[in-house]
Amino acid sequence: MNYLDLSKEKLEQLLDATNEEFKAIRAKGYSVDISRGKPCSEQLDFGMEMYNLGDSLKHMPKNYRNYGMLDGIPEMKKLFGEMLGLNADEIIVCGNSSLNLMYDTVQRNLQFGVCGQTPWNKIKTKFICPVPGYDRHFAICEHFGIEMISVPMDEHGPVMDIVEKLVALDDTIKGIWCVPKYSNPTGVTYSDEVVERLAKMETKAKDFRIFWDNAYCVHDLGDVTDPLLNIMDTARKYGNEDRIYEFTSTSKITLAGGGVSCIGCSENNKKDILSHLTYQCISYDKVSQYIHYIYMKDMDHLKEIMNKHKAIIKPKFDKFENAFLEEFGLDSNIAKWTNPNGGYFITLDVYKGCANRVYQLCKEAGLTLTKAGAPFPYGQDDADATLRIAPTFTSDSDIDISIKILICCVKKACLEKLIGDKN
Amino acid sequence: MNYLDLSKEKLEQLLDATNEEFKAIRAKGYSVDISRGKPCSEQLDFGMEMYNLGDSLKHMPKNYRNYGMLDGIPEMKKLFGEMLGLNADEIIVCGNSSLNLMYDTVQRNLQFGVCGQTPWNKIKTKFICPVPGYDRHFAICEHFGIEMISVPMDEHGPVMDIVEKLVALDDTIKGIWCVPKYSNPTGVTYSDEVVERLAKMETKAKDFRIFWDNAYCVHDLGDVTDPLLNIMDTARKYGNEDRIYEFTSTSKITLAGGGVSCIGCSENNKKDILSHLTYQCISYDKVSQYIHYIYMKDMDHLKEIMNKHKAIIKPKFDKFENAFLEEFGLDSNIAKWTNPNGGYFITLDVYKGCANRVYQLCKEAGLTLTKAGAPFPYGQDDADATLRIAPTFTSDSDIDISIKILICCVKKACLEKLIGDKN
Repeated sequence: MNYLDLSKEKLEQLLDATNEEFKAIRAKGYSVDISRGKPCSEQLDFGMEMYNLGDSLKHMPKNYRNYGMLDGIPEMKKLFGEMLGLNADEIIVCGNSSLNLMYDTVQRNLQFGVCGQTPWNKIKTKFICPVPGYDRHFAICEHFGIEMISVPMDEHGPVMDIVEKLVALDDTIKGIWCVPKYSNPTGVTYSDEVVERLAKMETKAKDFRIFWDNAYCVHDLGDVTDPLLNIMDTARKYGNEDRIYEFTSTSKITLAGGGVSCIGCSENNKKDILSHLTYQCISYDKVSQYIHYIYMKDMDHLKEIMNKHKAIIKPKFDKFENAFLEEFGLDSNIAKWTNPNGGYFITLDVYKGCANRVYQLCKEAGLTLTKAGAPFPYGQDDADATLRIAPTFTSDSDIDISIKILICCVKKACLEKLIGDKN
Repeated sequence: MNYLDLSKEKLEQLLDATNEEFKAIRAKGYSVDISRGKPCSEQLDFGMEMYNLGDSLKHMPKNYRNYGMLDGIPEMKKLFGEMLGLNADEIIVCGNSSLNLMYDTVQRNLQFGVCGQTPWNKIKTKFICPVPGYDRHFAICEHFGIEMISVPMDEHGPVMDIVEKLVALDDTIKGIWCVPKYSNPTGVTYSDEVVERLAKMETKAKDFRIFWDNAYCVHDLGDVTDPLLNIMDTARKYGNEDRIYEFTSTSKITLAGGGVSCIGCSENNKKDILSHLTYQCISYDKVSQYIHYIYMKDMDHLKEIMNKHKAIIKPKFDKFENAFLEEFGLDSNIAKWTNPNGGYFITLDVYKGCANRVYQLCKEAGLTLTKAGAPFPYGQDDADATLRIAPTFTSDSDIDISIKILICCVKKACLEKLIGDKN
């Protein structure tokens, strides 16, 4: 049903019915949260298997227990390297939070500059933010007063015609945030052409850096993984390997509350980072690193682990996608959603001008969504259309409730808007 | 034997013998390192008991496995609170490195200012550095370009007449580094009067902060712990509770390569820190925090753990102290050493102008000491007299070798100097 073709009378008739439904739902006093990309309890049960240690720590090299080895243990450098397509010696294994690493990397560049260049604090630094994107990336920029320039995402990644023009002209643009695989929140994996153009493009700023947050590099939902061109190899072809900082973590492989993270980068960047890190830290938690290595072992075993996760969370994605399809079909013009092949999110685009209202209505009905606008710099979604859904954390029964509330609120908000537009 | 009373002939005679001894030692090709305060293998064996987990993780609250709880798990907040004499709600439990916390705290204040005050980056920030002190504290200042003002330590702590005058007059002095108990490297525990004066003193800078690195709060070597006045309680009496940042970690209780750290502070400071930390991190490793809690349990059990450490390391301190006493006695005027009641270091003061020479000679003979000058800002020990000895890491047999080399090199350097002075 194409809602745009409906008469005012028909819309009002549908709204009446939807209002009744909304009242009935609200009366139930539900309380459900699909706002954050958190693993569910069954997934964390897998992660806890990591601590069935048996004798494994007996084989841990004894020096791992002491200070030292600032760039991490060789076993995890190798494994993270394989996950990211980097050499082990391009990895620094850190604490449990890759967000912490990204924040620290921005802060370090603000304070000290990159590889001997002018500190970013000394200029009016700007970042390119593909939208919709990850709210915590944008929050880092906002917190540091870094100006954010939104660039739209399409199904191939950020629109490169715009990105290339911006970075070629403005040497105060120092970075771009990228979640290149199963992007947060759209699920898009960057095409080979986008990766190549990012790796190759001319940048006015010599110290321009791509913050390549490969958070979902092994987080498939489909049978086949989305292919992602190796940006470091590609950048190296053009002599631009210093442009790339890669990040990932095991937060959604082992434990969100106790994983291991890493930064991967060129030799020059690694040297630059370590030259500051050595004042900040003597070493990260190498015992945790070793326990992670023992549990994850190698890429084959990691795939087995991720298949167990997929078996738990894929049905949750399916439930949302199937319910949307059944309710709205493909030509409603009031709801369009993604069917991601991996990652942690579905993006739901509703009729222009309705996303905030949907968020508010859901809140009234007991469903917490990510705040409308959150996937945009400064929380500003000019179209007021995009909502992010995080299906993983919620139990199966709460998923059904979430879907019921969400669909009702989308209909109510959009019908109100369409009727208002006709007045 | 008072070396200062000896004739030139006698000095030369002693030097000849010492040179023979030095040659013989050097010929052995020793390689021993007493440069860093690292736990030894037996101590780390204790720490590994932490991972004899049994069923203990079954009782861990399930939400600890997921994102969230930025200020840490309640169990460790309580235990760190008891270690530092703070309330549990004054604690933020963090990752494995308290150095990282101190660095981040300085960086945060440089970038954002303290509690809404002017960012320290905007002014010529200075710190007071009691000397001799912890080289990594001073390295943080040097790295950030913070000017360091040395203030001497005596047996009660930093000389407060000087500290009070400095902070009363100069509002660009924003901090002071303190290791208040079993100070690195002197072993001094601050007297009640020093703590009270630090807590009470007038500071021209409203955003002056005491960096209270209580690294050795439970690290006794004697039967009785050195009493340390509770600086937070004392500061609160004077309305100065916002002046204090306290730090500690379990690096020398559990594992240097995998401990847990914390910052303790007033409600205002905690709110200020969390207002930035929430952009940097979603949570620290709460599973590691819980494993630490299970192992350490409470203050009584912690004391038992520390007694096991003491039994291992106290004899190493005794060996150095006894050997020095036997060789030099109390009136040699070329060697004076501390007999600390806790902590990780012995300070050895040699005849003025000889510390660097001793360091070099030891190096030639195969013994690595902490670099002479390291316990001073910019590595500058004006008297060139102070050496730091870290007895803990080395095996018993290597301790004997260290002592032999060190004593020989102290004699050689000082005899050369005394003879030179007579010319």
